[in-house]
Amino acid sequence: MFDRIDHVGIAVEDLDAALALFEGTFGMPVAHRETVEEQGVEAALLDVGENHVELLRPLGPDTPVGRFLAKRGPGIHHVAYQVTDVEAALARCREAGLRLIDEAPRTGIRNSRVAFLHPSSSGAVLTEIVQPAHH
Amino acid sequence: MFDRIDHVGIAVEDLDAALALFEGTFGMPVAHRETVEEQGVEAALLDVGENHVELLRPLGPDTPVGRFLAKRGPGIHHVAYQVTDVEAALARCREAGLRLIDEAPRTGIRNSRVAFLHPSSSGAVLTEIVQPAHH
Repeated sequence: MFDRIDHVGIAVEDLDAALALFEGTFGMPVAHRETVEEQGVEAALLDVGENHVELLRPLGPDTPVGRFLAKRGPGIHHVAYQVTDVEAALARCREAGLRLIDEAPRTGIRNSRVAFLHPSSSGAVLTEIVQPAHH
Repeated sequence: MFDRIDHVGIAVEDLDAALALFEGTFGMPVAHRETVEEQGVEAALLDVGENHVELLRPLGPDTPVGRFLAKRGPGIHHVAYQVTDVEAALARCREAGLRLIDEAPRTGIRNSRVAFLHPSSSGAVLTEIVQPAHH
């Protein structure tokens, strides 16, 4: 069902400090930056081969990533798997009885189509499935 | 420095239940299973394209993954990046002032050579660098 790991999402308090580590020290090129007001995040997507690291800075405390930071501190927020057909993947997860956060795909960064699965039935991991725009 | 995401390590309490999800529902083939007594874990490595998910069940509560489960519950434990030269990558991390858990590479599963970086200077993420055996 999954073609590869699309990205690991990491919640950060200071995006510039995180970029100094991931871009500067680890040498991951920044592929994309975007502020998504409706999600309450500023996101930076960095390349690691065909995979990515997605750094997520909350725009305020009353946002999903802001609440995550308050509760758990900075660190890994979610894992995303790449698919060629997000509807089919989401249907398979629904049929398997997994609890969905998104009942239908929505637009993610870089015009991808994404849907989140609830950690409660996904191994305690907030799980995202991503169909990139170029597919 | 990093060629790709090698794997995401996920701490689980029940390996069979986790395999039912990751192998059964998500369709990730099991590539390898290994009990590493010195690390105190039973590990299952599943393929996701060229990447992997590593499921980690502690052999007891007084192990690194056992303590992680007691403190944080099940979920993402670490992220591993693949390199072609683990010594060179570790030297670069040391020169950048990152705090290392392993001062020298050691043997990981499937005869890989691995080294861990401490989360305190790695974006609050337990970070592993992996040189696969076939490189």
